[in-house]
Amino acid sequence: MAAKLPRAVSRLIEQFERLPGVGPKSAQRLVFYLLHNPEHQLQEFADRLVALKRETVLCSRCHNVSETDPCSICDDTSRDEAQLCVVEQPLDLLAIERSERFTGRYHVLHGAISPLNHIGPDQLFLHDILKRLEPVEELIIATNPTMEGESTALYITELIKQSLPPEQAASLKITRIGHGLPIGADIEYADGVTLARALEGRRQM
Amino acid sequence: MAAKLPRAVSRLIEQFERLPGVGPKSAQRLVFYLLHNPEHQLQEFADRLVALKRETVLCSRCHNVSETDPCSICDDTSRDEAQLCVVEQPLDLLAIERSERFTGRYHVLHGAISPLNHIGPDQLFLHDILKRLEPVEELIIATNPTMEGESTALYITELIKQSLPPEQAASLKITRIGHGLPIGADIEYADGVTLARALEGRRQM
Repeated sequence: MAAKLPRAVSRLIEQFERLPGVGPKSAQRLVFYLLHNPEHQLQEFADRLVALKRETVLCSRCHNVSETDPCSICDDTSRDEAQLCVVEQPLDLLAIERSERFTGRYHVLHGAISPLNHIGPDQLFLHDILKRLEPVEELIIATNPTMEGESTALYITELIKQSLPPEQAASLKITRIGHGLPIGADIEYADGVTLARALEGRRQM
Repeated sequence: MAAKLPRAVSRLIEQFERLPGVGPKSAQRLVFYLLHNPEHQLQEFADRLVALKRETVLCSRCHNVSETDPCSICDDTSRDEAQLCVVEQPLDLLAIERSERFTGRYHVLHGAISPLNHIGPDQLFLHDILKRLEPVEELIIATNPTMEGESTALYITELIKQSLPPEQAASLKITRIGHGLPIGADIEYADGVTLARALEGRRQM
């Protein structure tokens, strides 16, 4: 009795519902919006979806998403081999590149250790950091300032201490990206944890 | 110098950005989420996008999205031909069907009159309502209680009065769906316009 959506519509709604942050209502809205698009635009959208994996690779050195292997950063001999920056995601790498303050190399983990989501060190590109430490003088761990990011930073630090020969471990500087108040923020509205970190990380003027 | 996203990634981000309510940041998040999906799932998503228009039609009578023409509601002889309900979108039709209180036929406009968005009566399935009024005793206008929905309701009422022969127009009842407090709402938090409409629409107990 009750009217039902055509199968082609409900199946596309299901696809959109699987995306993170897209609920049933927004999935419906998106699909009915697409229904008013001409067919060639849907075809273009479909082609680009398929091209996403087909035309990209993960760089075999830093695991960044790239068109070439090695990626343009790993391939760029002008970049400083002595600094290696560990990030969770390719978007984090891009954000750091935009800051124009880092000229070293990267290592993309593709996530952070998160036991609740069944993500352990083996689900990440984590252990092969060890193979890249030969020319590195400073390892900057730029995982997110979250529970998962902090645990990952600790895990990497411990892993290196336990795996490297003592003299190499001693000469390697491991740093964590600075935490504190973001520029433009208001101390009045900062949360306690951030303020505590900002005080710990204070520097002489 | 600055690292750039692979073309396949940035082009898919562009596609997602075109969707309503999806900003640049969420488009990025969605694409990097998809990047971790296996290729066959992307292919399935792509296939369903293409199937959306290919496997659906607009019913030539009510303009609802359907697999068949006429759609299952227009084709259902048990439904009451004397009541015709005008809605803006197919999702509105579905919502009314879910209420299980309406057994008549529908007419889907696919939008509402909105001069700011360059949508006039000619961009909607509006004038062909006139051709469907022959068996209709009551026309229920269930466009949204927004500026656009109200103007569309007024336009339809005027159009019918001016187009139908006086005796047919006089015998046709045109009604607007009731406005007032939604069930479960709190009078304390209701806005003034809704309360005004609720008072106007009061009924004897």
